[in-house]
Amino acid sequence: MEVYEAIRRRVAVREFKPEPVPEPIVRKILLAARWAPSQRNRQPWRLVVVQDKDTLAKIGALASTGGFIAQAPLAIAVVMDTTRMVQFDAARAIENMILTAWAEGVGTCYVGGIDRDAVKELLGVPEEMELITVMPFGFPTDDALAGGKRRKPLEEIAFRERFGQPYV
Amino acid sequence: MEVYEAIRRRVAVREFKPEPVPEPIVRKILLAARWAPSQRNRQPWRLVVVQDKDTLAKIGALASTGGFIAQAPLAIAVVMDTTRMVQFDAARAIENMILTAWAEGVGTCYVGGIDRDAVKELLGVPEEMELITVMPFGFPTDDALAGGKRRKPLEEIAFRERFGQPYV
Repeated sequence: MEVYEAIRRRVAVREFKPEPVPEPIVRKILLAARWAPSQRNRQPWRLVVVQDKDTLAKIGALASTGGFIAQAPLAIAVVMDTTRMVQFDAARAIENMILTAWAEGVGTCYVGGIDRDAVKELLGVPEEMELITVMPFGFPTDDALAGGKRRKPLEEIAFRERFGQPYV
Repeated sequence: MEVYEAIRRRVAVREFKPEPVPEPIVRKILLAARWAPSQRNRQPWRLVVVQDKDTLAKIGALASTGGFIAQAPLAIAVVMDTTRMVQFDAARAIENMILTAWAEGVGTCYVGGIDRDAVKELLGVPEEMELITVMPFGFPTDDALAGGKRRKPLEEIAFRERFGQPYV
């Protein structure tokens, strides 16, 4: 799938078919994170691939806005060294993973509401590291693909030469 | 260009040919940011497109690690409402822009060292908003494409089921 097409069409997916994500796709998603840029090329990310049903159910129960993780066939926990640009670097790797998954027909979404300390303990993440999120992955149900994307018009967000001067 | 291919091959570009970035590509880069996900779909980003040589030179002079902005035919300043996830949301839009540009043969890179207050004043950015970075864009010189990407092996960053258990 072409880059812009993936960016344009991708939606957040919270409902997954039960079938597993094939291993070559899992690997490609991990590699997409690996190839992300990071501050001074520190590559501060670690990715914990979870496919065990019991662990997925436990993570789902720990995620106030991500109960659907329990129904996903796969989740990837994104863990970071606590560098200065931890959120920024994590987001770049995450965006790469989202787009690569989408190009393979696999949906995911960012989960914000999650008991990070409890998930860290569950997955054995060292205390000094930061758990950013746990992202569920799976093939979207038809319902999950029904929604569109709403965005502000370009003229509200893009300016020419100076802030406030319309781009369009 | 295919999504993973763009992610795999993209390198940071700091040296640009003088020719301008065609307007349809500029627009596509802006739209790629626009389609990015953000916390609660707040879309807190504003993008200031700079093509004026004088302004580009001034920004270059204000960027300790981005003097090359002065030689780029185009730069985009990324400005954010100060939301809770400002760095995270900015990075997702920026990654979309980088990949979309790359797929069109246009290079860019994140510039960290920059006098943000001075650039805000130069571009008329409201005081309460956050300037994340100014990214130069342009067609890469041959030299700019000569470098490869060095990344840790997958087994160092990816684990299976529990932190520390090798994925591979």
